[in-house]
This record gives sequence, C-alpha cells and structure tokens, in this order.
Amino acid sequence: MGVSNRTYTLRNCAFAVDYSHVEGPTNIVVEDGFIKHVGKEVEGDELECSEYVVMPGLVNAHTHSAMTVLRGVFDDGELHEWLARMWDEERKLTREIMAVGSEIAVIEMISSGTTAFVDMYFNPDQIRDISTQYGIRARAGPTLMKDKSVDETVRELRALGESEFFRPIVNVHSLYATDLQKLRELRDNLNRGYHLHIHLSETREEVFQIKRRYGMFPVELIHREGLTERVHGVHLGWITSWELNYLRSSIAVTHCPTSNMKLATGGAFPMKEALTQGLNVTIGTDGAASNNSLNMFQEMKMAVLLQRHNYWSTGITAVDVFRASSVNGYKMLGIRGGEIRPGYVADLVLLSKYEVYPLTKERLLSHLVYNPPKEVEKVIIQGKIVYQKNDFRDRLKKLLEKLSLYL
Amino acid sequence: MGVSNRTYTLRNCAFAVDYSHVEGPTNIVVEDGFIKHVGKEVEGDELECSEYVVMPGLVNAHTHSAMTVLRGVFDDGELHEWLARMWDEERKLTREIMAVGSEIAVIEMISSGTTAFVDMYFNPDQIRDISTQYGIRARAGPTLMKDKSVDETVRELRALGESEFFRPIVNVHSLYATDLQKLRELRDNLNRGYHLHIHLSETREEVFQIKRRYGMFPVELIHREGLTERVHGVHLGWITSWELNYLRSSIAVTHCPTSNMKLATGGAFPMKEALTQGLNVTIGTDGAASNNSLNMFQEMKMAVLLQRHNYWSTGITAVDVFRASSVNGYKMLGIRGGEIRPGYVADLVLLSKYEVYPLTKERLLSHLVYNPPKEVEKVIIQGKIVYQKNDFRDRLKKLLEKLSLYL
Repeated sequence: MGVSNRTYTLRNCAFAVDYSHVEGPTNIVVEDGFIKHVGKEVEGDELECSEYVVMPGLVNAHTHSAMTVLRGVFDDGELHEWLARMWDEERKLTREIMAVGSEIAVIEMISSGTTAFVDMYFNPDQIRDISTQYGIRARAGPTLMKDKSVDETVRELRALGESEFFRPIVNVHSLYATDLQKLRELRDNLNRGYHLHIHLSETREEVFQIKRRYGMFPVELIHREGLTERVHGVHLGWITSWELNYLRSSIAVTHCPTSNMKLATGGAFPMKEALTQGLNVTIGTDGAASNNSLNMFQEMKMAVLLQRHNYWSTGITAVDVFRASSVNGYKMLGIRGGEIRPGYVADLVLLSKYEVYPLTKERLLSHLVYNPPKEVEKVIIQGKIVYQKNDFRDRLKKLLEKLSLYL
Repeated sequence: MGVSNRTYTLRNCAFAVDYSHVEGPTNIVVEDGFIKHVGKEVEGDELECSEYVVMPGLVNAHTHSAMTVLRGVFDDGELHEWLARMWDEERKLTREIMAVGSEIAVIEMISSGTTAFVDMYFNPDQIRDISTQYGIRARAGPTLMKDKSVDETVRELRALGESEFFRPIVNVHSLYATDLQKLRELRDNLNRGYHLHIHLSETREEVFQIKRRYGMFPVELIHREGLTERVHGVHLGWITSWELNYLRSSIAVTHCPTSNMKLATGGAFPMKEALTQGLNVTIGTDGAASNNSLNMFQEMKMAVLLQRHNYWSTGITAVDVFRASSVNGYKMLGIRGGEIRPGYVADLVLLSKYEVYPLTKERLLSHLVYNPPKEVEKVIIQGKIVYQKNDFRDRLKKLLEKLSLYL
C-alpha cells in the first residue's frame, strides 16, 4: 500500500463525491488524519485510485450494536410488544456475548462504509475498546432506565474515559422507561457538555402516555426540563409540528426509517419541516433486531423512499439523505467531517467505479443512494486505512463460532 | 464442479429453505432439471454444499431491463412527470444500446439470485436471445402503446418464438397510454392463452383519467372487457377494495414497493386483502430508472416494510413476501417451482452460510428477507449452474465500456 507515511495522496481518484459536489479525476492529499488538498497536488506516499470513487464515510446516528445477537429472533411484533420481548431476551445476555455481538456489528458497519456510530446498550466499555481496536469512531455510554440509579449512571460515565475514536455519551432509553425525577437528577449532576441520546416520540402510545403522565408531549417535556441543547432525539415519527421548533438547538435528530416501518409504528418523521427549521437531521439503522441490517447505504435509500411515500412528493432527494448521513452526522459528533475538502477529517470510503453505473458525474450521487455497490473497497478513518475488501472474514467466522455456542 | 451429469446431488446442504419449511443438513438430488429427492438420497455427481444454504430462485415479476441505461438520469419527478422524461430519453435509444442495457440487467439479476423475470420494453427479441444465452427464464413481448398498430403487435408477437427459457407475452403499457379500441382488437386477434402484462391503477391520475374517459375504474374496465383471466396487473396502488374481487382469476398481481415510493405515487397496494381473496401476489423491482436496483432480496424487504407502514400493523411477514417472490412467481409463469420439493423445477440459489447469522433454523427465513447476503454463491436454473460468484465481471466491464460510448 505504501501509505505508512503521515502524508499521502489518493492519486487519480476517478471521482471524489460528497453531498455538495463531484470532482474527477482528482487527487486527495491526506496529512495527519486530515484532508490537506483536493486537486492536482501530490505529496508523500501515493495510492493509485483510478479505479475508485471516493466519498466521505457514513455516520450511523443510532444503533444498538450488540443486538446482532438478537437478529431475527422476533420480527413480527409492533414496537411495545417487540420491546417487551427484547427486554426478556436481554436479561439472558452475558457480557461475553454482548462483546461478540458488538464486534460483529462493528465489522458489518466498517465493511459497509460506516466510519462512526452512536450506540445505546449495556456495554459502553466494550464499545470503547472495540472501536479503539478497529479504529472506528464511536459514541456510547451508560443507559438510564428504571432499574438503574443516577449515581451508578454518572459513575459509569466518568469511568469510561475517551480515546482518539471514542467519546462517552449519556443514553436515556426513553421518557416512558425512565422516571422524570431521575432524568432531572442526572441533568443536575452533569456538566453542560454532555450528549444525551434518547428515543423520542417513537409511537403514538409513547406520546399519549407522556401526555397523560406529565400533561405534555415528549419533546415539549424535554424542552421544559431545559434539556434541548443536550438532546440527540431519535425516531420522532410522532412529533407534532409545533414541537419541531423546540429542537432547533438540539445536537441532532435521527430518522430510522427501516425500524419504524418494520415495527409498524406508523410514524412519519417530518424531514421536510425539520430541514426547513434548520434541525441537524441524521439517519440511523437502529439495531439488528429491528432492521435487521446495519448498512447505511440501504438506510439512505429507505429514508428517501419513506419520505416520498409519506409526503406524496419527491421533495426529499438523494442529496438530502446523503448530507444527513455524512456532514450532518459529523456535525453531531462535533467533528469537521463528511465533505471532501481541505481541513476536513480524512474519513473516506473508496468504491469500485465498476459498480456505480452508468458512471457520469451527474448520476454518481444518485447511484450511491439508490443503487450502491454491494461492497466497499477500502475505508479510511482519521487518515488510516482501517479496512480493505475481505478483511475480517476469518475474524467474523471465529465470532460466529462463539455466537453459535450461545444460541 | 463435477456436475456434468444429468443427475447430481447437492450434498450436505447446511439448510434448504423455502417459504413453507426449513430443513438441514440435507441432500438435494437433481435430475433432468428437476428436484428428484430432498433428504438422504445421493445420486450421480456430487457437489459438496456444507457451506451453503439453498433456497429457490426469485422471480422478478416486473421490470424494464434495458432501463439500466437510464439509471440515475432523472430521479426527482413524480410518476407522470418522470414518465414524460423517460419517453423523451427512450426516443434516443438505439437497439444496440438496449441490448447492452438488457444484458447488464440480466447479469445483475442472475448474480443477485433472480432466476426468472417479466420484461416490458421495446426489445423483446433481444430479451429472447439474452435470456437463452444466460439460461435465465424470461417473458417479454411487444408493447402496445398509442403509436403502435395491433397488426404490428401481433406480427411481432408471433415472430418471437420460444425457447427452453423464453416465452412471449403481450405487453400493454397502460390503459391511459393505449386506446381501448386497440386493446379490444388485440384481444380479438389472440388466442385465449396469452399473458397480458399491464401497468394498472398505479396513480390517482390514472384512476381518475380512466374513470372520466370510460366511466369505470381501471380494473373494473379490464373486467368488463373480458380480459381478467389473461391479466398480469402491475402496481395497483390505487385499486379500490371492491375491484380486488375482479382479479381473483388473473394470472398475477405485482407489487413494486420501491418504484411506487420513489415516484411518490402515494399508493398502497392492498397485500393483506389481495392474499385473503386468493390473488396470486408477486413482487417486482420495476426498471432501473425508478428503483434503481434490480435486486429482489431488497425488494422483498421493501415490500414487507411498506406494507407494515401502510397498515400500521406487522400482519405482513417475511413468509408472505418470500412466497410472493418464489412460488407465486413460478405459478405466474406456469411452472411448478419456487419450493424445494421433489417434482419442482431445480431453480436454486446457493448462499454462503457465513452471511446469514445468527444461523438457526428458526431465524433463517428472516435473514433472507431482512438481512440477505451481499452476494449469492451459485445460481442453478433448470438444473444447470448458470452463475458462480464473480462470473461475468469481465463481461460487465466490456458492456460498461460500450455504454460509456453512448453516454
């Protein structure tokens, strides 16, 4: 490969494409983990890229990685029925099997072009270690639910530490699975700088339960509790139009189209209005028990399709969902990434140009969303090549052997 | 491979799975293109299959194969606007480029586990030749539209002939793009045994245009004209509940979820009621300009997701869409296929067991629908191995070169 140097060039890329522009052929100079030049410059080691299309890595804004273990275990229940079953299944999971599940998920995500993910589960310390080992960016943290104290949550959070790739966040399962009192205590115990990741307005049942209990809709309640600026709210299929305004200063909102459809929540994430109001819209696969894939290319396609179906309009386009899955995802993480421009982090995905066709500058972004390649060729994170096609096959077989002992 | 014999055995298949049952490990004996035994028997040559899961081939019940050429050319219009643009683009297509487009489509379909497809386009003779060359089952025929006479259509149809893999059908674009008078003439010119493939009740605009013109809804009109038993109706997102009854004796109805969503037709194919009434429900990708993929695995997933979203219920399951894409597809073709049982045609797809996990008998069908493998390993049609992983790569590159000259 010859890219051991801290400076190298992806030379002669057939195209470089991000949500806002397509260039090609072009060189991309990477230095110390960041894009230094895009154009004619060549510096340091060289990697011949004439057979590749280069795009930014994708950010999976919401998943439960260890749930690969529960993939396919129960597909035919609506959300609250499904959740009850999952909670039963989860009581049986050991830490060992969660580590296997999350590592499988990380392999699936990296090998399908995902360079960062936000996780909610019971094994944030394992996520820290696995993400650091694979060199994929991750956010995870303790999950506040009914059976967990605030003290315990805060202690766990502080013990997590951070690495080049990992930063801890606060997970709150949902308003319905947490006491408001606990949420307040948690808020009062933490500094302002935390990232609060929460399932929000996912079902009608949730919305009406919260309204009945607190006299307010979920997002309205989050706003009243002064949590807006910390919130990363997920699903929002049942958010009211007038609540959207409350999320303008939130970290991000995440659309999980496949999960919502599979669990028949009937929700309609209002992407058009969210974009108009300037919310930071991102996309997530959700976990492997409610999708059941962790492939962000497929999720982008699903998002644009579901939005068109709900609005009876083609107003949402490939550009919108690609932007949501790249630059908006990086914005949520507090990283300047998701575009192929000098100064942006070198989180890049290389695809075979023979798999995106008819290959023209005008059609390229369409292919990435509507007919992406079956596999990616290489993945670069923070300037480091962390994946090349067929990597991790033997490791995956070993993990599947471990998994089969558990089943 | 050692399967030159007319009799051979897929030995030690990890699992054999169809919509109704999963078995494994098991042997499958193939003789003269048909499944002879499923169980312990071994006859003829042997192919070791312990690393494979075997399933029936998938039937793509509706596509426009040559439109791979137009993939990504115009993604952001609603159906009638999109169609006007496609008709413009299509006037520029030469026969040479249509042949390239259809061959690319056939490669994409075979290599993603599709063993048969129904095509509507301007090159049925090319479909006959390409399908015969690749050994994939196909149905295609002349397309009756405003600018084509009935005589010409009938002449073209009769000239097509048939092969082991190909049979001619009659394509009628739609009731709105055809004169009723012509449709009647066509009907009166043909024997009873033809397969009439038509876009039907796809948009509100179509439904109200037909109602205004003829005083009837589209399916109602088909029924009045005595065409029901010949009809293979596609889309039906706007069929009324009381019209479903008219299609009980039709050849098939086809759901194209991705296309409907992408073109924002807003339609809701009533799969639950169609199944309850005993209609032969099938699934199609539609063409590469309105999907933009020809992968039937993805289409099965899309179908179950869209159905759940529309009904706010998980009533439609993986079994329903797998059945629609296998056994129902074969029923439409008049072939006993789509199940792994003695007497059924040996149209089989072999998958790596390492790509469908956690691998248990109970979860296997779920994986095929919700998280299918990225690639299939082998495809068998009429007992013949027509595809092995990585086949056709060089051929595809050559076709893309030809295509690039046209762009």
